[in-house]
Amino acid sequence: MTTTHGGAASAPTLDEVAQAAGVSRSTASRAINGGLRVSPEAQAAVDDAVARLGYTPNRAARSLVTRRTDSIALVLPEPDERILNDPFLTGTLRGVSAALGSSQLQLVLVMARPGEQNGRIARYLGSGHVDGAIVASHHREDGLEEALMGSRLPAVFVGRPFHGPASGLVYVDVDNLDGGRLGAQRLVDAGCRRVATITGPLDMTAGIDRLEGWRTAVTAAGLADDLVDGGDFTTDGGAAAMARLLDRDPTIDGVFAASDVMAAGALRVLAERGRSVPDDVAVVGYDDLGIAAAATPPLTTLRNPVIDMVRAATDVLLDMIAGDAPPTEPRLFPAELVARASA
Amino acid sequence: MTTTHGGAASAPTLDEVAQAAGVSRSTASRAINGGLRVSPEAQAAVDDAVARLGYTPNRAARSLVTRRTDSIALVLPEPDERILNDPFLTGTLRGVSAALGSSQLQLVLVMARPGEQNGRIARYLGSGHVDGAIVASHHREDGLEEALMGSRLPAVFVGRPFHGPASGLVYVDVDNLDGGRLGAQRLVDAGCRRVATITGPLDMTAGIDRLEGWRTAVTAAGLADDLVDGGDFTTDGGAAAMARLLDRDPTIDGVFAASDVMAAGALRVLAERGRSVPDDVAVVGYDDLGIAAAATPPLTTLRNPVIDMVRAATDVLLDMIAGDAPPTEPRLFPAELVARASA
Repeated sequence: MTTTHGGAASAPTLDEVAQAAGVSRSTASRAINGGLRVSPEAQAAVDDAVARLGYTPNRAARSLVTRRTDSIALVLPEPDERILNDPFLTGTLRGVSAALGSSQLQLVLVMARPGEQNGRIARYLGSGHVDGAIVASHHREDGLEEALMGSRLPAVFVGRPFHGPASGLVYVDVDNLDGGRLGAQRLVDAGCRRVATITGPLDMTAGIDRLEGWRTAVTAAGLADDLVDGGDFTTDGGAAAMARLLDRDPTIDGVFAASDVMAAGALRVLAERGRSVPDDVAVVGYDDLGIAAAATPPLTTLRNPVIDMVRAATDVLLDMIAGDAPPTEPRLFPAELVARASA
Repeated sequence: MTTTHGGAASAPTLDEVAQAAGVSRSTASRAINGGLRVSPEAQAAVDDAVARLGYTPNRAARSLVTRRTDSIALVLPEPDERILNDPFLTGTLRGVSAALGSSQLQLVLVMARPGEQNGRIARYLGSGHVDGAIVASHHREDGLEEALMGSRLPAVFVGRPFHGPASGLVYVDVDNLDGGRLGAQRLVDAGCRRVATITGPLDMTAGIDRLEGWRTAVTAAGLADDLVDGGDFTTDGGAAAMARLLDRDPTIDGVFAASDVMAAGALRVLAERGRSVPDDVAVVGYDDLGIAAAATPPLTTLRNPVIDMVRAATDVLLDMIAGDAPPTEPRLFPAELVARASA
């Protein structure tokens, strides 16, 4: 073996920088790549080690070696119209963008189109164009779970996937089961006896879990759980479901809608039919992302901590990209009722 | 040289399919890749040739050979908040998505973040992760022209770039110069004598051209062109500019705002200061993308044919990706005044 003129002659590595700074490799990597989630002390130590060792991260060269793309995808398998009109989806975009902060990663938004063929987004994710992916608004049949289970691409779902823990799929979520339960309980406690629900899409776990939570509370109160109609997380879908429910049973006195956007559609139909809210019909929504407070009357709803969830998902993703093992447990945010005038 | 068992033994090529169908190679390619902008007759001929020759487009194999990524980028070098709140930018996203129609291309949206370092988006575009790019809302200093002039990546700007025809940069645009002129002329014709303008960002050609058009009309009418204040294509920016203009000259009787979003901010300030529109102050906006018709009073404005422009840009881009030479002339859409109550 040849010996070089000591360590200084060969370019210092990230490991050497981390060691000299007394921090982990992933902290050193984050400090060098924009300082995201690095304490001021660690940042100073890494900056100092970089200067002392003469470490020069050559992004292009590194990219050739590591095959890093320096970009991550936010995957929203929905058409652009849905994305632009749904505060949860725009909130997800805002949240990822804010969570990336000063990092050097380029964010690319990957959307579906109406009539989308399944598999295209999965193919894109599998072809090495991004270092990792955040997936939100996932549907059972969009093929993303299957694509990501068999992939080495770091990925974090916002919202529980259908495959269980053995799948190794990583996710963050809000406790939608408890949210549905709290929403229905609010109606039960207000004295409602004919409590309906407008569900989200039942090919999404958020839709399933909120329905199940509603059912738990109404049956525990000894009420019937027959007043179920499906929406699609749109205003028009919520309005149509409310109209069908009232046609089926004009004595409905409480409605839990699985999103505020659908609740807004329900409020419109209730107003058209001369029902006063909350006196004739009490209404609870879900999300609390702006439109709830602006509704007439303002909506009692469940808080969906989208910015916090998305930040948590992004942090986990960046750690996985930096080489950390995926977390073994999902991060679950508690449900929280926000009381306003509608129920 | 070895001879194979005739042509049938080797896999048929796209050229052979095109020849058999009696169409161009790029038409054959479009027909096979989803049928975008292919006449029913050509589609049938290509489908027939594919079946007769047994042509099997293997996407993954093709991608290895051609280094195609089967994705294109829509580059909007603006922070997410601007994108989500500006009807021109959301319209651009809708337009590209619609123009891609049933094509197999994945669309990725590439955004800036607040405090963006110049160069990151250019690096992303240069690293082979997309087959082409549509660039809109381009600013002089964002580095995109320089990056794309030296690149082999097919790209089309929506909005004239700063570099002239010799740069080879391809673009589509609306005639903003004539738009600014028509907007100011409307105020002159209404009898306004103190005609102000709220400009867009002057590091964008749309901002520059609309200002220049305004100046042409007011000076041709023998009026002073001193009442110029800058906005930033946001409501708050338009409101602040309107307030400063009124502070400078309370006798202002006409305002041309270079976007409806800014005009909406101007209307707010005029209402706060008790000026009636159009009687005390006439107002003309720009864009006509929804908020103009909904404003109080409804805005006279210039039509910005964003969907048509973006469709034209996408069509040109797809042709360039299919191997066509870039067009030598930009596609320029005419300006068109839409008369409503505000002026």
